[in-house]
Amino acid sequence: MAPERADRPNALLRVHVDTDQQACPFCPGNESMTPPEVLVRKAAASERNGGWTLRVVPNRYPALRTEIQMAREGDGLFDRMAGVGAHEVVIETADHAKTLADVPPEQVESVLGAWQERIVDLSRDNRLKTIIVFKNQGAPAGATLSHAHSQLVALPIVPPAVAEELRAAKKHFDDKERCVFCDVLAQELRERERIVYETEGAVMISPYAARSPFEMWILPREHRSSFESSTGQELPAVADALRTLLRKIDVALEKPSFNLYLHTMPLREPSNDWYHWHLELKPVLTWQAGFEWASGCFINPTLPEEAAAFLRQTEV
Amino acid sequence: MAPERADRPNALLRVHVDTDQQACPFCPGNESMTPPEVLVRKAAASERNGGWTLRVVPNRYPALRTEIQMAREGDGLFDRMAGVGAHEVVIETADHAKTLADVPPEQVESVLGAWQERIVDLSRDNRLKTIIVFKNQGAPAGATLSHAHSQLVALPIVPPAVAEELRAAKKHFDDKERCVFCDVLAQELRERERIVYETEGAVMISPYAARSPFEMWILPREHRSSFESSTGQELPAVADALRTLLRKIDVALEKPSFNLYLHTMPLREPSNDWYHWHLELKPVLTWQAGFEWASGCFINPTLPEEAAAFLRQTEV
Repeated sequence: MAPERADRPNALLRVHVDTDQQACPFCPGNESMTPPEVLVRKAAASERNGGWTLRVVPNRYPALRTEIQMAREGDGLFDRMAGVGAHEVVIETADHAKTLADVPPEQVESVLGAWQERIVDLSRDNRLKTIIVFKNQGAPAGATLSHAHSQLVALPIVPPAVAEELRAAKKHFDDKERCVFCDVLAQELRERERIVYETEGAVMISPYAARSPFEMWILPREHRSSFESSTGQELPAVADALRTLLRKIDVALEKPSFNLYLHTMPLREPSNDWYHWHLELKPVLTWQAGFEWASGCFINPTLPEEAAAFLRQTEV
Repeated sequence: MAPERADRPNALLRVHVDTDQQACPFCPGNESMTPPEVLVRKAAASERNGGWTLRVVPNRYPALRTEIQMAREGDGLFDRMAGVGAHEVVIETADHAKTLADVPPEQVESVLGAWQERIVDLSRDNRLKTIIVFKNQGAPAGATLSHAHSQLVALPIVPPAVAEELRAAKKHFDDKERCVFCDVLAQELRERERIVYETEGAVMISPYAARSPFEMWILPREHRSSFESSTGQELPAVADALRTLLRKIDVALEKPSFNLYLHTMPLREPSNDWYHWHLELKPVLTWQAGFEWASGCFINPTLPEEAAAFLRQTEV
C-alpha cells in the first residue's frame, strides 16, 4: 500500500505522458525539481559544456523508503510489514526528445552500468533482499513522464514472481545438474526459429510460448547468476542487443509502449550454477483482462516464431 | 497460443469499442452474425414482443475449441498440448445501450443463472477441467464490443492462479480445519472497516491489502465450494450485491472500465469444506507495469479501507 503515491500528478488517471520540456523534472536546468542525485555521469569537458549525461535520483513519490523502521506484525488472519526499501529513478539521457533507442550504444551501456552500480550500493543495506529494475515507456505501459528513464525498487522480501522463477530454475538444476536458461539457449540456438539477434556476448529470443505478442528476452551467452557481476566485456554486448531490440520494435511496431525488466538473483547471494540473469521486454499490444487475472494464463494471438521472424528481418 | 484471434477486428490495437448498433453482432436482428446459440432466455410473450432477453453463443474467435483432439507432447525442453476447450459469450441483455449496472435485478440474476447452466453443461466433457467466467467492460479492460456481455473459457487444465488459490486455501484448512474465506468474512464482519455492503446472502468487501484501487470481492455468506451449486435463495442475493457494486462504481468512479471474474472449484469436484466460491472485481485505474510483471507484487496507492468507506457512502 503506497497512499503517498496517490499525490502524484495523474495518479489513477489514464492521461498522456508529459512532453513539456520546461516542466520536465528530468531535464537539465530542472535538477532542483528532483531530490539530490545519488549517482551522476558527466560528459567530457569538451562535450555538451561538460554537463551530466545520466543521473540517478530518489523517486519523488517512492513506493518504499529506507528511513523507516523494519516492523512485521499480525493483524488477525493477515500479515503486514513496514514498507522498508528504496525507489530510485535513472534518468537515462539529458536529452528530453531522445528515447533509449535513439541514444548511442555507449549511453545504453552507461545505463546498464548505472543499474549495476546502484544495485551494488543498495545491497549494503541488509534489510533489502531483492532489487527490481524496470523501465516503462509510454502511458499504456505505466509511464507518467516521457523523458527517458528506468527505475529501481529495492524490496525487503523476495517477491512472488522472482521466488517462483528461482524455485523452478533450482528444481531443473536439482533434476539435471544443468542451468535451465543455458538449456533454453542451447535448444534455441540449435532450432533457430525463435532467435532474433545474437552477438558474441548475448542472444535475443522470442521465448517459447511467449505470454504476449512480441515478448522478447535477452540472455547473456555466458552463464552468470547475478547481473551486477556481469563483466566489462559482456555489458557492451548486452547493451548492443538491448539497443537493437528497442530499435527493431520501434520500426516493426511503430514505437510501441513497452515494459522492460531485469531478472537477477536476490541481493548478496553467492554466484551459483542454476540461475542465469536476463532481460525481458513486453510491448503493450494486448490487455491484461479478466481471463488473465482469473486464471494466471495468457492468450497470445501472435506466435513467437512469427514475431521472431518479423523482427529478424526488420532492418535497423 | 491462439493465432486465429489475430483475425479479430482490432486485435493488437488499442481502439475504442464498437458502439454502432447496426453492426453489433449482439443486437436483436443480428443473430446471424454469431454462431447458433447454446442457450437462450425469452421474455414473456406479453413483453418486448416475446423476443430474447439473454443469449449464450460460442465465441466467433475462440481461444480454445472442443472439436480438436486432446494431444500432449514434449518439444525438447518444452511441453505443448492442443487447445481443447470452449469459449462462449453471454449476451447479457438485448438492449445495446444498457450495461449490467442498468438492467433490473432479475436480469443480473438471469446472467448468473446462465453462467451456472453453462458450467453444468460444459462439465459433462471430461476433458475440461476448469471454467473461467469473466467480464471485461470498457476498452482499457480488454473489451472489443460495447454491448453488455460476459465470457466463459473452459480449460483442459487447472490454471496457475486457480491452482495457487486452491493450494493456499487447502493449506489453511489443513492447519486450522476452517475455511480461510469463512475466516476472512468473520474478521471483516467484526472489524467492519473493509465492508462495503451486505445482504442476508452475500457480503461485499474491499479485500485486505487489495492489489489495486477499488478492488472488490463479493462472497456468499454461506460456505459453498462451487458456484454452480449456489441455490435459488443465494443467487438473488449475490445478483443484488453485484448490481449494487456496479452501480456504486459507476457513480463513485464515473463509469470505470473493469474486469470481473468468478473463482470457483474446478469441474466435477465434490463439495468440500476448504474452498469458498466468490466474485472479484478490479476497476482499471492503474497499469500493470514493469514492476508488477517483474515482481508479481502490486503497488496500490488507494487504501482498501478508504475505498470501502467511499463506496459505502456512495448512494445508488
